[in-house]
Amino acid sequence: MNAVPMVELWRGGRMESRHLGHAVIWHADAGLVESWGNPAEAIFPRSSCKMIQALPLMESGAGAGLRPEQLALACASHQGAALHVGAVQRWLADMGMSESDLRCGAHEPGDRAERDRLICAHEAPCQCHNNCSGKHTGFLTMNRHLKGDAEYVAPDHPLQRAILQAFEEVTGETSPGYGIDGCSAPNFATSVTGLARAMAAFAGAGGGGSARDRAMVALREAMAAHPEYVAGEGRACTELMRAMGGRVAIKTGAEAVFVAIVPERRVGIALKIADGGTRASEAAICALLVRLGVLDPGHPATRKRLDAVQTNWRGLETGLVRLADGFPA
Amino acid sequence: MNAVPMVELWRGGRMESRHLGHAVIWHADAGLVESWGNPAEAIFPRSSCKMIQALPLMESGAGAGLRPEQLALACASHQGAALHVGAVQRWLADMGMSESDLRCGAHEPGDRAERDRLICAHEAPCQCHNNCSGKHTGFLTMNRHLKGDAEYVAPDHPLQRAILQAFEEVTGETSPGYGIDGCSAPNFATSVTGLARAMAAFAGAGGGGSARDRAMVALREAMAAHPEYVAGEGRACTELMRAMGGRVAIKTGAEAVFVAIVPERRVGIALKIADGGTRASEAAICALLVRLGVLDPGHPATRKRLDAVQTNWRGLETGLVRLADGFPA
Repeated sequence: MNAVPMVELWRGGRMESRHLGHAVIWHADAGLVESWGNPAEAIFPRSSCKMIQALPLMESGAGAGLRPEQLALACASHQGAALHVGAVQRWLADMGMSESDLRCGAHEPGDRAERDRLICAHEAPCQCHNNCSGKHTGFLTMNRHLKGDAEYVAPDHPLQRAILQAFEEVTGETSPGYGIDGCSAPNFATSVTGLARAMAAFAGAGGGGSARDRAMVALREAMAAHPEYVAGEGRACTELMRAMGGRVAIKTGAEAVFVAIVPERRVGIALKIADGGTRASEAAICALLVRLGVLDPGHPATRKRLDAVQTNWRGLETGLVRLADGFPA
Repeated sequence: MNAVPMVELWRGGRMESRHLGHAVIWHADAGLVESWGNPAEAIFPRSSCKMIQALPLMESGAGAGLRPEQLALACASHQGAALHVGAVQRWLADMGMSESDLRCGAHEPGDRAERDRLICAHEAPCQCHNNCSGKHTGFLTMNRHLKGDAEYVAPDHPLQRAILQAFEEVTGETSPGYGIDGCSAPNFATSVTGLARAMAAFAGAGGGGSARDRAMVALREAMAAHPEYVAGEGRACTELMRAMGGRVAIKTGAEAVFVAIVPERRVGIALKIADGGTRASEAAICALLVRLGVLDPGHPATRKRLDAVQTNWRGLETGLVRLADGFPA
């Protein structure tokens, strides 16, 4: 795999655990800027490609009436806070649909307040609590336009075929296959380079008048302007996008994928930690954003994840999440 | 580091994530049986060495009146179920002590029923809910015997000095240093071989009449006979020890350490997944226990962790946690 050391956990003055990974920084016009590990490694982007999955929605015009908050939610892995659940429920109602039209499944929300409310009310979480429910409501919006059947997550459904076509166009690669994601939608594989190339396309958009160009600008701007809809309080995407003041859109994916869209530099970033450890993908994306000069290394949101002091249940310092020697330089 | 591929997550017919690690199987008399990765790698055993930390308690006679359930709890990373919390509270009360004498800190319990009870009662978790509260109550029992001061987790406290001495004797190595564990106690480093050698000593105990020999037998038998106290329902240690019918004692540690004591083979196992991924340490210990012929590969507790089909929120198959080619053979 040729993954390279990226992030380490230190304790008592010695390395306790180490994460290896792959990363690519790609320029919209000039191509490869830098890479680490194996840029050709085929990966599943998982939730990091939700803005790609939203392209058909926007390009078709089906999403024309959506507010930026809804576009951010379509690209989100939210934590099921009242903010997110309420917005999904209203969006579904606007279409004359309900929670039962979703095909993402239900899970306990990550948001503490909403989780505790459900527990005390003896209420089961519903599909609107699923971290992907915004993406799925976007899927339903596009599916209504397509007049597709209800099983919109089937890999051969017209919606997923449209997503695959957009995915292959923006990654510049034929996808070698797909896996089924946690939310039941197909997740198409690509190389780390392919994913970075797609993010660079989002970063470089804005000069043309094509439907794709406008869709990319709308989605990246919605994410960066409404970070609270993309993840939630305390979460990396939300806190780091806030720290960058709306200049950059970033998105995490399960199994330690992270991407960034940096319009002012016209570059995209994609990275994958080989072992799937999220603490490492969060530290690594911070490092690359700092390297590009768009994230303040001293910002609390950065310090929480990069050179992050670990404390225990009594507040004692126990360790440090730090970059491996040689990464990123 | 020379860690070797041990466990992989597959999705859609391709590898999505991979975990590397180190492992040693050691025989009480014959020494090295097999190793993978770097047997000399210095690691923090974390909670996997709780039975070593309990040796001074037993060898001193301070733990003579304790029931096997209490010994299992002293070696536990329990999930704060009512069973565990109640047993710790009674043990403390038996000594005329209370929760405030503990120095482990409080955290939300992993046990769902107890977690939900606390939330609905608007009750904060207490130190008895800490997964290490049994170990700490064992520490307090030994500390009463030592007449040590209340800050029993200080690295230079007589209790911790006694633990270090026992630790170095059973690992057969001078510890290169310590880190502070999540529960605030010092955690002494050793090599993977050192930890396996210690587990082999536990496995081979029973023929001698020394205090250490008796202590090792009592602790390993308490763990294997009362697996519900060592972790909790649904957890790897509990389910796998049950699957082995009390013949083998096993223990997990944070950052993906796992150890096993196999008396019938007079061997000990120690393994560490380099990236700290627990799903991989659970799969790897299953593989080594199957290899030793003491765990049924078809048992549901094994299948949950080894060649484990992953399903999503709608019950669809999404992936598989499987062994890497070449591991363990």
